[in-house]
Amino acid sequence: MSLEKDLNDSNTYYAMHNRALIHKKPTPIQVVKVDYPARNAAKIVEAYYKTPSTTDYNGIYRGKAIDFEAKETHSATALTFRSIHPHQIQHLKKVLLHGGIGFFIIRFTRFNETYLIDAGIMIELYENGERQSISYAQVQQYGSLIRQSFQPRLCYLENVDTLYFKEENNYGK
Amino acid sequence: MSLEKDLNDSNTYYAMHNRALIHKKPTPIQVVKVDYPARNAAKIVEAYYKTPSTTDYNGIYRGKAIDFEAKETHSATALTFRSIHPHQIQHLKKVLLHGGIGFFIIRFTRFNETYLIDAGIMIELYENGERQSISYAQVQQYGSLIRQSFQPRLCYLENVDTLYFKEENNYGK
Repeated sequence: MSLEKDLNDSNTYYAMHNRALIHKKPTPIQVVKVDYPARNAAKIVEAYYKTPSTTDYNGIYRGKAIDFEAKETHSATALTFRSIHPHQIQHLKKVLLHGGIGFFIIRFTRFNETYLIDAGIMIELYENGERQSISYAQVQQYGSLIRQSFQPRLCYLENVDTLYFKEENNYGK
Repeated sequence: MSLEKDLNDSNTYYAMHNRALIHKKPTPIQVVKVDYPARNAAKIVEAYYKTPSTTDYNGIYRGKAIDFEAKETHSATALTFRSIHPHQIQHLKKVLLHGGIGFFIIRFTRFNETYLIDAGIMIELYENGERQSISYAQVQQYGSLIRQSFQPRLCYLENVDTLYFKEENNYGK
């Protein structure tokens, strides 16, 4: 299962149980040509993927605006920053400026481990770090491991509670 | 100028001046077939518009999650609820449940007037009202007129301040 599918399933679970309202934004697509083979039936016949100007996920949790980007890597050693668009870093800076909660969710597929790491730390490494990547050791050091379960697949709101709401994690939830 | 363009321009202005971070979500599109006429160049050759499951706009303002839908009508008497998807009503209910600020922005193009109206009021009319529309008189009664200017085109954060932050409007801003 891909990280995107796991997150979508988890967000559906959280929405159904009224825990949070978090959605993946649609992929931005530039539509060039549309045909109308039948009345009211629009068929897009030429379009292109656009570079995203924001992160992939956002929503509301416990009254706060939540905004994050998800990345997975097959590398066992690091996530390269080439997979993060500069626009996404600028966007997350603004999320923090306006009082939202911003973070990255990073999966190392080799280990089947998924971490949540604060956007402020990622921005610092992205802009001022010595390397153009974040190492697996840094993700372990600065991030927090997301518990996996049957439902939700990724219990990442537990990590959000601990990091941003200064609470003990309640694993009984 | 369309309402969408006015809102996008206003949101760009607000973002540039660090007043708020509000984006229009991309239109959801179901991609069926993609060609690769050249390396790294993906061309979508068959795709269809999907029914939106959420509202068009969301973001962060003064630490709060903001979520709204924008509609314009050429009618001089009412906005029909047929233009609002049931999914969008369900979505806005959840926005309110989770502590976000939710509303509609409605433009009557005949009068070049644009109003902000709280989602709670719209949901009540949508679900329990006598008609399948909201009349121009109701929009005037329950909504608040958005001031227009050169920049931003629609000063709708003034209305948000007044309605949701219990403050006097500061027209000097």
